[in-house]
Amino acid sequence: MEEIIQESVSYSTIRRLPLYMPLLKAALDAGEQSISSAKMAETLGLDTVLVRKDLASIGITGQARLGFPVRELIEGIERFLGWDNISDAFVIGAGNLGRALAGYAGFEAHGLKIVGLFDNDPTKFGKFIAGKPVMELSKFPHLVHRMHIQIAILTVPGIDAQAVADVAVEAGIRALWNFTPAKITVPENIIVERVDLAASLAVLSSRLVSTARAAEYRQQKNL
Amino acid sequence: MEEIIQESVSYSTIRRLPLYMPLLKAALDAGEQSISSAKMAETLGLDTVLVRKDLASIGITGQARLGFPVRELIEGIERFLGWDNISDAFVIGAGNLGRALAGYAGFEAHGLKIVGLFDNDPTKFGKFIAGKPVMELSKFPHLVHRMHIQIAILTVPGIDAQAVADVAVEAGIRALWNFTPAKITVPENIIVERVDLAASLAVLSSRLVSTARAAEYRQQKNL
Repeated sequence: MEEIIQESVSYSTIRRLPLYMPLLKAALDAGEQSISSAKMAETLGLDTVLVRKDLASIGITGQARLGFPVRELIEGIERFLGWDNISDAFVIGAGNLGRALAGYAGFEAHGLKIVGLFDNDPTKFGKFIAGKPVMELSKFPHLVHRMHIQIAILTVPGIDAQAVADVAVEAGIRALWNFTPAKITVPENIIVERVDLAASLAVLSSRLVSTARAAEYRQQKNL
Repeated sequence: MEEIIQESVSYSTIRRLPLYMPLLKAALDAGEQSISSAKMAETLGLDTVLVRKDLASIGITGQARLGFPVRELIEGIERFLGWDNISDAFVIGAGNLGRALAGYAGFEAHGLKIVGLFDNDPTKFGKFIAGKPVMELSKFPHLVHRMHIQIAILTVPGIDAQAVADVAVEAGIRALWNFTPAKITVPENIIVERVDLAASLAVLSSRLVSTARAAEYRQQKNL
């Protein structure tokens, strides 16, 4: 029934789960065997009820007075998020962003290991980025098959995103982490998760422009 | 009245605006003076009505038969998003992610230039990442003031995020781009925009785990 529990967990709970790990690991390091939902809630700035709901939704409940078992929580979250079983991933697009992500070691703690990059620029073939080879895109399907890769990270220009996603899906990739500015369409059984840095920066800078103009306007009017 | 127009523009419109730029620039390069909302909608996979609404909300309307003026659209979006006026930014946290972002040249096209990094690890002081100096955090307030920096990019561990945000706000930073896994609390007049890579990866990998388990279950039951 585990997969049924898993499928019913809300998007926002899943997004919050990584937040619990640093404080649980700190508690473990300090030799604490259990932790209260009130303490977790306070440290994370969340509501206690929400904390209990998050942990219950992955099948872990606390006990009155005792609280939640720390080690069980860590293992439960790791298992739920697949962090106990590191997945290899390919990056498609060895431009600035692809190179930056390939050089970022932080993903390994979260169960993701980038093992190679692909590009269609021959001047990049055979080079290494953070120890990972850059290969030509035409070899992608063969290597996905041979290395049992399930995750592709897309860092190509937006205009190429759909074509590259099609290649990845055709090759047998099951999950796409889309860092391009484009929306992509994939078959229903393929997982897509998007991080749109340009959109996030657009929000930040437009709000900065807007407040600067408002301040200027007030100054001009001597308000 | 410009700031009033700006403030009424929806979050989702702002996030979509960067999408228009590559196709507008391609049209400009091809010598086209105007472009129809239908063509933009088709290229981007958006609804035509939504495209007209997006562009109207930044004060640009098309003309029947003629469509939208390409150059005016480009300038309008650049002005709206502050891309016509590159902002310098500091990164706080010269770990893996901070280094990756500092090395990513793609932000400059979007009006953001990283000019330095700060950390509290003395072994990093005086080093350069992608040509940008790593400095000690205690010098941050002085340099924010001297260089008129308005944007700080936070890439510290989640547990340090609030303390570092407090330092940044106190130093006069007006916008925080928060890449840490933590939520931060700031005064009302400070802009915060968050990119939570760990949360995004959690969604991706939990869904991958979930579908893998469902497949295993079906196989066991010979379904």
